[in-house]
Amino acid sequence: MLHKHRSTNVVYQAHHVSRNKRGQVVGTRGGFRGCTVWLTGLSGAGKTTIGFALEEHLVSHGIPCYSLDGDNIRHGLNKNLGFSAADREENIRRIAEVAKLFADAGLVCITSFISPFAKDREEARKIHQSSNLPFFEVFVDAPLDVCESRDVKGLYKKARAGEIKGFTGIDSGYEKPDTPELVLKTGETSVNECIQRVTELLQEKDIVPTSVTEEIKELFVPDNQLDMARAEAEMLPAVQITEIDLQWVQVLAEGWATPLKGFMREREFLQVLHFATLLDGKCLFCGTINLSVPIVLPVSTDKKESLAGHSAFALMYQGRRVAILRDPEFYEHRKDERCARQWGTTCAKHPYVKMVMEGGDWLVGGDLEVLERIRWNDGLDQYRLTPLELKQKFKEMKADAIFAFQLRNPVHNGHALLMQDTKRRLLERGYKRPVLLLHPLGGWTKDDDVPLDWRMKQHAAVLEEGVLDPSSTIVAIFPSPMMYAGPTEVQWHCRARMVAGAQFYIVGRDPAGMPHPETKKDLYEPSHGGKVLTMAPGLTSVEIIPFRVAAYNKMKKAMDFYSEERHSEFDFISGTRMRKLAREGENPPEGFMAPKAWKVLTEYYSSLDKEK
Amino acid sequence: MLHKHRSTNVVYQAHHVSRNKRGQVVGTRGGFRGCTVWLTGLSGAGKTTIGFALEEHLVSHGIPCYSLDGDNIRHGLNKNLGFSAADREENIRRIAEVAKLFADAGLVCITSFISPFAKDREEARKIHQSSNLPFFEVFVDAPLDVCESRDVKGLYKKARAGEIKGFTGIDSGYEKPDTPELVLKTGETSVNECIQRVTELLQEKDIVPTSVTEEIKELFVPDNQLDMARAEAEMLPAVQITEIDLQWVQVLAEGWATPLKGFMREREFLQVLHFATLLDGKCLFCGTINLSVPIVLPVSTDKKESLAGHSAFALMYQGRRVAILRDPEFYEHRKDERCARQWGTTCAKHPYVKMVMEGGDWLVGGDLEVLERIRWNDGLDQYRLTPLELKQKFKEMKADAIFAFQLRNPVHNGHALLMQDTKRRLLERGYKRPVLLLHPLGGWTKDDDVPLDWRMKQHAAVLEEGVLDPSSTIVAIFPSPMMYAGPTEVQWHCRARMVAGAQFYIVGRDPAGMPHPETKKDLYEPSHGGKVLTMAPGLTSVEIIPFRVAAYNKMKKAMDFYSEERHSEFDFISGTRMRKLAREGENPPEGFMAPKAWKVLTEYYSSLDKEK
Repeated sequence: MLHKHRSTNVVYQAHHVSRNKRGQVVGTRGGFRGCTVWLTGLSGAGKTTIGFALEEHLVSHGIPCYSLDGDNIRHGLNKNLGFSAADREENIRRIAEVAKLFADAGLVCITSFISPFAKDREEARKIHQSSNLPFFEVFVDAPLDVCESRDVKGLYKKARAGEIKGFTGIDSGYEKPDTPELVLKTGETSVNECIQRVTELLQEKDIVPTSVTEEIKELFVPDNQLDMARAEAEMLPAVQITEIDLQWVQVLAEGWATPLKGFMREREFLQVLHFATLLDGKCLFCGTINLSVPIVLPVSTDKKESLAGHSAFALMYQGRRVAILRDPEFYEHRKDERCARQWGTTCAKHPYVKMVMEGGDWLVGGDLEVLERIRWNDGLDQYRLTPLELKQKFKEMKADAIFAFQLRNPVHNGHALLMQDTKRRLLERGYKRPVLLLHPLGGWTKDDDVPLDWRMKQHAAVLEEGVLDPSSTIVAIFPSPMMYAGPTEVQWHCRARMVAGAQFYIVGRDPAGMPHPETKKDLYEPSHGGKVLTMAPGLTSVEIIPFRVAAYNKMKKAMDFYSEERHSEFDFISGTRMRKLAREGENPPEGFMAPKAWKVLTEYYSSLDKEK
Repeated sequence: MLHKHRSTNVVYQAHHVSRNKRGQVVGTRGGFRGCTVWLTGLSGAGKTTIGFALEEHLVSHGIPCYSLDGDNIRHGLNKNLGFSAADREENIRRIAEVAKLFADAGLVCITSFISPFAKDREEARKIHQSSNLPFFEVFVDAPLDVCESRDVKGLYKKARAGEIKGFTGIDSGYEKPDTPELVLKTGETSVNECIQRVTELLQEKDIVPTSVTEEIKELFVPDNQLDMARAEAEMLPAVQITEIDLQWVQVLAEGWATPLKGFMREREFLQVLHFATLLDGKCLFCGTINLSVPIVLPVSTDKKESLAGHSAFALMYQGRRVAILRDPEFYEHRKDERCARQWGTTCAKHPYVKMVMEGGDWLVGGDLEVLERIRWNDGLDQYRLTPLELKQKFKEMKADAIFAFQLRNPVHNGHALLMQDTKRRLLERGYKRPVLLLHPLGGWTKDDDVPLDWRMKQHAAVLEEGVLDPSSTIVAIFPSPMMYAGPTEVQWHCRARMVAGAQFYIVGRDPAGMPHPETKKDLYEPSHGGKVLTMAPGLTSVEIIPFRVAAYNKMKKAMDFYSEERHSEFDFISGTRMRKLAREGENPPEGFMAPKAWKVLTEYYSSLDKEK
């Protein structure tokens, strides 16, 4: 019998699932988020428009919600109610009770009803409060004349004509909320801005989490604590860091590796090497955070021993103390294993692997406090925009779609074709102001790559010649060093731009690849980068735009998307051939690169020859 | 103005989020799962008990749901209803309408109300059908006398005394459902079984997905198609496979690598190498599937070329065609890169790496159809139980907790201590019948490991001597080859046992480790295996029990958990010392290993000496 079984082998608890547990299961963002957003206002004020837009916005951010509105209530639950005073009150009461159930189930319930009377709304609030559920009254405020002029359903007209009795605003009153949680003046504010305001309210109330890509964690010391931090740094033992270490400090300080608080500790290091993701500080059901490359600080055994017992030390570059590292955690720098997992090779002739192998035998993780913006004083610092600065720029440009292009080489018309084509596709999809982030990598690169200053001149020439549209392009420098780690590194390139606000990322053939230092064949299979990137967990808020192979079309005298059927029309101009032409001061085929941009390259290569 | 904005810069659609999109966000298992489970039956039949248990069961499997019951309805939404006929009808109508809203929101709504009248239940069904939402009527069926004898709330007593009027079963009728989707006879069936029945119904109806660990994908050809498949295999071109390849065929065929359908294709291979997880065939919001080791079939270039154009071929081992591989996909076996990522080393003296390096230059993925159980005819086949067979055993033993111990070495009392301690902890946590899966690895091992047949004899002696309790232990053989891949491999060892039903997995120091073939130091940092395993995504349904270091306690003359304070009491008996003792026919310290088990070892080592 049932009760007998209950007392013996039943392990279930005979009560509801806890809200905590529910929060883990309902929604992809973890945590209990149940609440009600109660929209109130005149007919035509925009409640339903805002309700639907809010619902879509929340759902697309992984927050489960459900709208109650005339559509699903009046024809169902409340179909047996009319418009008498008692029925109107009962209408609102039932809606409030159902909203409470949805909130209890862990959803954000959005209700869109005129609900004209303060007493009824107060009752709705009480129903929620008595169950410890948050209730947010949002006054959707538009003047009567505006609402009446909209009159989408023709109700005002009918009410004015006396065909509808007791219509709110005409022959029945609307009691404005005295202390709503939010007022949205829809006569003056766009729907997008309204949604933004509601989202901010819900973030304040911990209903909506600020996502990784939205919340950028900079590691700079706040201005008001700077003097004290500088004084402290002077007293601390110091560790000399290399130029590449400083580039990583910049990457961390500016928030590109958000949510890292500093150089990786061992747990983070293992997570990144084994899973290319950060797994801590997030519940299982939250969004995954992609991070595929170790961001680590190597130190020598001597240095490690000299720092034993210190709870903090300063990082020093060329005589300046640039940062404090707190609560250091030393762990073995297992170089062979690290290189094997990060690069898929331990070949010591690989230029970055070589540096790892020559570096310290220990890694030290810890929280960073960075004392100043990292400046390189090479005339290019104004291009080194932080993720927050980039986001601000995009906002000022009123960008509604941002697509990023990572590069460490000169731009030829094949690249340009791709960027142009991406823009065309975004416009076709209904975006009005797509903005290109042309984002050359600015940190360390290997000796035979074109140096940053020459590349920047070349990029400027490309824009000057109108190959790319300067009014919808931002050229900025990505401060990361280059690792030449192929499929592993392309994820890093993409996620860093995602943090800066890019929603679209263009990926080419063999991204972050190079020839194997010994065999001279591709170190990575050229298609693996794109394949791994499109599969990588945690890059969900960015859409990967795969490169279509572009080559020089001899008939069109222009770069063109390659087609196998028209193979004979195409000429694949290799990097080697391009360099040879530039070095010999010759011109490439017409339409391969904007002439001024080509001129920069020939100048660079002739400057090299002079040095010899 | 709002409407102006709507027509210009609003990209939101002015209607509800699609059910498809909702399904991605609501719940951790992806897919729209909205429906209503309508429990009906007499007071005391067990509706609420089943409703709550079902809710907890579903939530713990990542399915969002919400219960409507007397508690949250009668005191809220329906508090203005009495027990008149009209009010009773309205009561059920409102519940049905609210249930429909929850189902529409993507939740499984469970209602627990007597709902005695067929007409009302029919109306509830119609309300759902008209919105295209599944409705499952579940008759919670217990005879009146059983319900009355339970009478938890004392209602039957009051009804019999006339204090309650119109009580269903006493002075008001209950109309049994004619064609309910399910009948639960709670007088005869335990709550657990009831939940099982409902879950099966919901799985049939695609509401509840069968999870990876629940649904084991075996790759054997069904008996009724065997003759045809065998005949076909004889006609197909054949690929000779090695003993290790056959061990992997066994692993795949028996479902240890569920949901793999055969040897990995390139996408799966890349996912495993880069993320240690399988990412396809699951929506982003589904549970992650851990798989950390490539399960691949290498072939030579010649073989690949000879198979060009064939849509299937046979796998042949020692003259027998054992499987058909369909829809083959050949991709480059980038051995260096694979070894680097899988082992964190490319050292060709590592015994498995060596085999990879000597193997074919191509990998071939494809769907497997396996023609027969893989048998080794070594007298141990009866121990090679498949995951399904193991699950059946656990069921027969009425196990309520299964803890697994992977090993490739003889069991000493330190291991035994750990297994005993785990059992003790499980009993303390309230489990009644914890069962140990003592699961030696049975595939390829390196030359200096003790061979499987000797290990099995040794394990038998350990059980015989009562060090482990035979009545709550299953000894079986895990068919996988050993890879000596440390933190990467320990995940494989754990996930395979998870598939076989283990909920607890014991992890020791340096799992799947070995000395570096050149430096002789640990190839992996000994703590990394445990650290990576506890962080690994996709191992959520198994609890990792970390090893506490056990050593020989000289005072106690027994293996004991090591304590730093009592360091002098302990003697760490290394494998080398143990082997030396066994080889020389000497005895280890008393209490290190059961004497009969030790005898097996000395016999093994003396047999080795004789061979020399």
